[in-house]
Amino acid sequence: MDAEIIAVGSELLTPHRHDTNSLYLTGKLNLLGIEVRFKTVVGDDAGRLASVFRTALDRSELVLLMGGLGPTEDDVNREVVANVLGLTLREVPEIIERIAARYARTGRRMPANNARQALVPEGAEWLPNKRGTAPGIWIEHDSKTILMLPGPPPELEAMFDEQCVPRLRKRVPGTPIRTRIIKVAGLPESEVDERIAPLYQPYGNVSTTILSTGGAIEVHLSAHAATQQEADALLDELTDKIEPALGDHIFSTRGETLEEVVGMYLVMRQKTLATAESCTGGLLGERITRVPGSSEYYLGGTVCYSNELKTKFAGVSPKLLESCGAVSRPVAQALAEGIRRKANASIGVGITGIAGPGGGTETKPAGMVFIAVADDRGTEVREFHFPGDRERVRLLSSQFALEMLRRRIRK
Amino acid sequence: MDAEIIAVGSELLTPHRHDTNSLYLTGKLNLLGIEVRFKTVVGDDAGRLASVFRTALDRSELVLLMGGLGPTEDDVNREVVANVLGLTLREVPEIIERIAARYARTGRRMPANNARQALVPEGAEWLPNKRGTAPGIWIEHDSKTILMLPGPPPELEAMFDEQCVPRLRKRVPGTPIRTRIIKVAGLPESEVDERIAPLYQPYGNVSTTILSTGGAIEVHLSAHAATQQEADALLDELTDKIEPALGDHIFSTRGETLEEVVGMYLVMRQKTLATAESCTGGLLGERITRVPGSSEYYLGGTVCYSNELKTKFAGVSPKLLESCGAVSRPVAQALAEGIRRKANASIGVGITGIAGPGGGTETKPAGMVFIAVADDRGTEVREFHFPGDRERVRLLSSQFALEMLRRRIRK
Repeated sequence: MDAEIIAVGSELLTPHRHDTNSLYLTGKLNLLGIEVRFKTVVGDDAGRLASVFRTALDRSELVLLMGGLGPTEDDVNREVVANVLGLTLREVPEIIERIAARYARTGRRMPANNARQALVPEGAEWLPNKRGTAPGIWIEHDSKTILMLPGPPPELEAMFDEQCVPRLRKRVPGTPIRTRIIKVAGLPESEVDERIAPLYQPYGNVSTTILSTGGAIEVHLSAHAATQQEADALLDELTDKIEPALGDHIFSTRGETLEEVVGMYLVMRQKTLATAESCTGGLLGERITRVPGSSEYYLGGTVCYSNELKTKFAGVSPKLLESCGAVSRPVAQALAEGIRRKANASIGVGITGIAGPGGGTETKPAGMVFIAVADDRGTEVREFHFPGDRERVRLLSSQFALEMLRRRIRK
Repeated sequence: MDAEIIAVGSELLTPHRHDTNSLYLTGKLNLLGIEVRFKTVVGDDAGRLASVFRTALDRSELVLLMGGLGPTEDDVNREVVANVLGLTLREVPEIIERIAARYARTGRRMPANNARQALVPEGAEWLPNKRGTAPGIWIEHDSKTILMLPGPPPELEAMFDEQCVPRLRKRVPGTPIRTRIIKVAGLPESEVDERIAPLYQPYGNVSTTILSTGGAIEVHLSAHAATQQEADALLDELTDKIEPALGDHIFSTRGETLEEVVGMYLVMRQKTLATAESCTGGLLGERITRVPGSSEYYLGGTVCYSNELKTKFAGVSPKLLESCGAVSRPVAQALAEGIRRKANASIGVGITGIAGPGGGTETKPAGMVFIAVADDRGTEVREFHFPGDRERVRLLSSQFALEMLRRRIRK
């Protein structure tokens, strides 16, 4: 089965906006053995959308349209798709009730124009949207499948995973594309490739992509074979070769994030964690608490941007701050040990650095960051010089803090 | 003049790769008054590319193709474009000399297949590539302009800026497109549209798009006019009408984020800020400190996931926690007032809630969040019931905390 994706939205034809949904959908479709052959972006314009949709119907079995399902007049997808297919739009009372109930839960009244979202072409199915108001629409028409999804990524992703993937799985006979992602921390992309290129190159049926994603390196393996079992066997064989080459730099082979892996270890070891963050401003805590259930092991800590709070909440002595400066190895150590003590946690983490772009000096340039991890066996402090802008320095700082944590508690 | 962009490359149809070139080109084209109406991604497949290229020729005056100019056999653009237009490819000796010289400079010999890159359709011009081997190709054919550019961004950008922009400027009389973004907080998308649709609908020369982006609503206005001045005047006129309709829900008309606006006010008023976050886990601090220079007004605070840290770092009494529960109006108030006092800040913010998916009860369901803002004029506490999953509840919590802050310090 071949698919094509149409992203609808005038904002996607400006210099400011990417279509990221199509990457997500492509990943999920490939897992089902469905190849994406074309992607088109078109504005909120009925005439142009109709022409793009007609072309897609001509050449593809599965056509996915994203966006254009909002309550406003510039959301034309429902009308255009119904028109091109020669179907009448009908208002579905149950959809209006759901939208009104959603508004009622947050104490608001449903604006009148939301009723547009209850229009569904005759004979089509509608898919409830648990994260928003616009339902999805699933149409079977002349041996083609047309799928209309809401544009906001959280709505689209939940709807596609929970409602569309199971339906599509029933319709696709197979020759699956199976993929695996090996996540690696603490090695640069080029070194990962140098170590594993001789291993993956002989595999003609497995395509290998190495991606750098915010501090972690991901090795994506994608195998084509006659059956799912054969594809999985190919992936197992290659993974078995790659694992020893990357050793304990691999932190996940099942898709978990680094913060999830750290959380798993903390639960297993029955340890608690506290953090004292300066330059990351709360990013480390935010990442740790992305994981549902993190309150089991994460106590919290301090975002200590000012020196006064470093002293007050993490017990760093004013003398030390004055003699070494806030961005220094001893202060990172004092932050980790201090927050561990104050919060009465098994493990303390301290981060201090210069995220930039301002604030750097010749001896302490932007990108210089000290990270410390303290537990009952002592304190490790590492000095980093991260490349990139403010956002990247902060992201890499949180990433390496998690990686230091992982190595500490794994033992 | 209308343009359309075709990105060629099978890697752009995988889950891992974005086409970023088209954003760059769109920005440059808009400045020339050229609107991009369609973007298509197609793999390295001669048949499919030919069909996409034919459709583009039918509907657009300017067709830009990116990628597919490499030296290998899967680079099919030259052949496909020449075929569709009925032109013969001819080898240009000067191009071969340039490529060979480029190799010689790095001490290497030109591989034989690079000769493919010297093929140019008869009657076409070729554009030297100062950063790579593949020349660009410029074709005028039956009142259409076809432009073939290399895929690597540094090559494409240099070639487009230096060689294509000056040529295009001569051909386009200039009806520039100017854009403006109005950002709105505290209103749902549908209500924003209800209020402003009667205002923007009469403006045929301004296209209006309303977008929901993580708690904030963005109104994108895009004006076409004979001159840049006229386009700006149109935008000013419409903005002047929209502003009273949305009132103080507008927080930015120059592209600033909510955290930047809050930062600006804090600097202007010479106020300092401290935060006590429970369910957001550090996200509010992280957003505040995304702004370079935030150390001027943000002191920090506590991520107090555990009750013990709510008491220790924000001074919330254990009695209050026991009698009202951690997720309650009085505890939010105590967090804001406590962190303000402990950190000696002008303003304190407290957030406590249930991000979900677990942890909710009948009376305190997931999505229930209390946010408090305290300063010398008193403390405001608001109760929210946010829809959506953990990530969304946390994002909306941070967004409304920033919006409450903005309203407090604006006065």
